[in-house]
Amino acid sequence: MIPTLTAFESSPDKGRGLARDMRVRWALEETGQAYHVRLLSFAEMKQPAHLAQNPFGQIPTYQEGDLVLFESGAILLHLAERHAGLLPDQADARSRAIAWMFAALNTVEPPIVERSMMTLLERGETWYTQRLAAVDERLRKRLGELSRRLGDADWLDGAFSAGDLLMVSVLLRSKSSGILDEYPNLCAYLARGEARPAYQRAFAAQRAVFTGAAAG
Amino acid sequence: MIPTLTAFESSPDKGRGLARDMRVRWALEETGQAYHVRLLSFAEMKQPAHLAQNPFGQIPTYQEGDLVLFESGAILLHLAERHAGLLPDQADARSRAIAWMFAALNTVEPPIVERSMMTLLERGETWYTQRLAAVDERLRKRLGELSRRLGDADWLDGAFSAGDLLMVSVLLRSKSSGILDEYPNLCAYLARGEARPAYQRAFAAQRAVFTGAAAG
Repeated sequence: MIPTLTAFESSPDKGRGLARDMRVRWALEETGQAYHVRLLSFAEMKQPAHLAQNPFGQIPTYQEGDLVLFESGAILLHLAERHAGLLPDQADARSRAIAWMFAALNTVEPPIVERSMMTLLERGETWYTQRLAAVDERLRKRLGELSRRLGDADWLDGAFSAGDLLMVSVLLRSKSSGILDEYPNLCAYLARGEARPAYQRAFAAQRAVFTGAAAG
Repeated sequence: MIPTLTAFESSPDKGRGLARDMRVRWALEETGQAYHVRLLSFAEMKQPAHLAQNPFGQIPTYQEGDLVLFESGAILLHLAERHAGLLPDQADARSRAIAWMFAALNTVEPPIVERSMMTLLERGETWYTQRLAAVDERLRKRLGELSRRLGDADWLDGAFSAGDLLMVSVLLRSKSSGILDEYPNLCAYLARGEARPAYQRAFAAQRAVFTGAAAG
């Protein structure tokens, strides 16, 4: 059964691969799974039909027969448990790779999202410059810790895993801040992720939604 | 082998059960596992020995033989996969319960943490009142969505699961804001969680660290 993913009909990132369907597309490509995509307008995302699939009115959702999942991390874990290529076989290594999935989503992504929400919502406020400096410092602290742990390794813990897939996806969202450039090993880590053929295929697929929409 | 959990020697929440070791203690109690606790000072959390266990210098970490894990969500999932009581057996129901774990950590916790960080760090700033109102609105939106999904059910998806354990743990951190009181079904949901014998045992255990420390 070919699963169906939902994605933005008109992504706020204009096809730069930063929306959360991208990480699921990437995982599907890494594991060689075909998938359908159903595009949703912002209005449709707030309708009962979509809220039944995702109570928070977000994308992506993932449907596979009777199973409906939301939360990109949960969808990734579901795929990683069922198809080879995203988690190590050895039990302890597998638990550690899953720890990096949670670290990406619960420890690294929040300061990145806080910063991008601020640039989106508070740019006109009197406090913008002063508060952004404080938010940037929190982000630097987190990225510095991650950079020290990664060191000169290719991936966070042995071979490429779903933990790296999520961490790269999350870090890409901070690229436009310029702060990431202060950590050359993280930049190289991102470049390794982006160079993967599965990433490239997923990126092209989400990009086509934007170019198609722009042309339509 | 009895695992060892790390926790704050001096918890900023003064034993109110809001630190992230509490959710792991609760899971250990739900699954009937004995555990040791190693308390860490803030200075120790920034030392190389702890950073080797958790690159972000946070608690909790979880050690079981050679395996060291960080991220409370990952530790919970590790426990839930190895011991009965925290995830359904049926595959789809299990994936959905895991989705609620990610929703608690990646969708509901961030606006709660953003609010508590703001009350901690920005109370003296000129923008405090105006910005807090905006942050509160974002939190209300999220809690409203969760409240609508929960409805009058006891738990988020069938029987109590690790998803509920994390969601209750996360929501407890927003209790002091007063905003939670606007959602009676969420308050009742929290009360059901707090009434569980395993929660009570875990709460008492973390509370004893504070009362012990305060008396010491």
